[in-house]
Amino acid sequence: MQRLAILSGGGALPAALAAAYPEALRIVFDDVPHQMPAPVEQHSLNRMGGLFDALRAGGASDLVLAGAMGRPALNPAEFDAGMMAIAPRLLPAMQSGDDGILRLMIAVFEEQGFCVRGAHELLPELTVPEGLFGGPVPTDAALADASRAFDILLALSPLDVGQGAVVSAGLCLGVETLQGTDAMLRFVGETPEALRRGRGVLVKAPKRGQDLRVDMPAIGPDTVRNAAAAGLEGIVVSAGRVLLLQADETRRALDETGLFLLGRVL
Amino acid sequence: MQRLAILSGGGALPAALAAAYPEALRIVFDDVPHQMPAPVEQHSLNRMGGLFDALRAGGASDLVLAGAMGRPALNPAEFDAGMMAIAPRLLPAMQSGDDGILRLMIAVFEEQGFCVRGAHELLPELTVPEGLFGGPVPTDAALADASRAFDILLALSPLDVGQGAVVSAGLCLGVETLQGTDAMLRFVGETPEALRRGRGVLVKAPKRGQDLRVDMPAIGPDTVRNAAAAGLEGIVVSAGRVLLLQADETRRALDETGLFLLGRVL
Repeated sequence: MQRLAILSGGGALPAALAAAYPEALRIVFDDVPHQMPAPVEQHSLNRMGGLFDALRAGGASDLVLAGAMGRPALNPAEFDAGMMAIAPRLLPAMQSGDDGILRLMIAVFEEQGFCVRGAHELLPELTVPEGLFGGPVPTDAALADASRAFDILLALSPLDVGQGAVVSAGLCLGVETLQGTDAMLRFVGETPEALRRGRGVLVKAPKRGQDLRVDMPAIGPDTVRNAAAAGLEGIVVSAGRVLLLQADETRRALDETGLFLLGRVL
Repeated sequence: MQRLAILSGGGALPAALAAAYPEALRIVFDDVPHQMPAPVEQHSLNRMGGLFDALRAGGASDLVLAGAMGRPALNPAEFDAGMMAIAPRLLPAMQSGDDGILRLMIAVFEEQGFCVRGAHELLPELTVPEGLFGGPVPTDAALADASRAFDILLALSPLDVGQGAVVSAGLCLGVETLQGTDAMLRFVGETPEALRRGRGVLVKAPKRGQDLRVDMPAIGPDTVRNAAAAGLEGIVVSAGRVLLLQADETRRALDETGLFLLGRVL
């Protein structure tokens, strides 16, 4: 790897990568919120040609797309030549499921000669390892709920839907959709008490066959606190395949809330 | 059929059945909200033995379980002998997915010699027929969203999850879980504008292989209004397999909101 460029979306991951790769180019985008510390270079997704040029000028050989990009508005009136060349592939990509755009971006960067890396390759210590990471040992009932949630995610995988689900006492209380894990946890927390029969478990896993360079699932202290606020008893994730942001703070959140966090090999 | 007994949960369906079958016994339950007009006979799910006796005393040969029962609290201290005999099957039923309890109730009533009917058999005119029921002709994009939502429901079917889903411009914005359609529509309506790329379609269908006597999906004017409030452009349902409550009022809601309602044969 000559030089890494971090294409920064939201959340804590881009800054963690920048800390581990201090020489990396730090790219942020118009209309995409970010927490990347300076110095950053700002670009527009409407002008991908300009981005390619800037990456080459900066000596970047490898890229990582890190953090949630949301769905920034594209404005065809502002497309540069590089973006015009991609334009015919945009609409089909948008229609091919939630990850279509990110998969297209990776394909386009690779065609431009860049090597696209996954954050989990660059920072393997940032994934949840196998075993109990923190909190109490889960009960058999919680493990059964987790298995059912994994089954639900597996069934949805071929449809490119669902990196998270909540099951409580055998009942599915939430399936993660475009709005993300935190929105699902708020929804679960609003479940009328009369419908609930237990606490429940959040499961996070990448879709089966998912390219982990695309929108790899992540958890962190906010996930733990939001899961606790939703009345859950713990979190189970696919070991080695879910990013763990702010590990120390996550451990503190587990201590505070009494939730468990378990990495399970599938 | 000697005499029908309507075991009433919530919503408008039990009263519609009572209007069509004026001689039917009308059973309501402690802790289960209902809109069944008098005269009703009130029972407790803790005393199923007493219910069997009352049904026989009333000359009931056939039963229909109509309307949402929620998950009424059972109190083993109040179980009668009839309920004690069922008790060992309760816990496994509760753990076998969202419909486990209703499937157990049907099995138990059949063992007791009653014939359990579906509301769609008793009132076939109450289901959404094939074709455009009301509102504008759906666009091809809306039909494509509906197909994707049907695919999502089909994938979840074997897991006993999901009678409804919302897809908008190819993106899944909601999967119905225990909390029901209206809760999902509220959740969809809270989707940040930046994440949305179009209006979208609500699809409702029974789970594949679902016993339609168990928790048959239903729509009505509230569904239409809630779908409109969530920013959707229409509703597509499995023709003949989804109950349509208050057809006239539903048509009025379609006129008011400009949404379409389409019955599709799968």
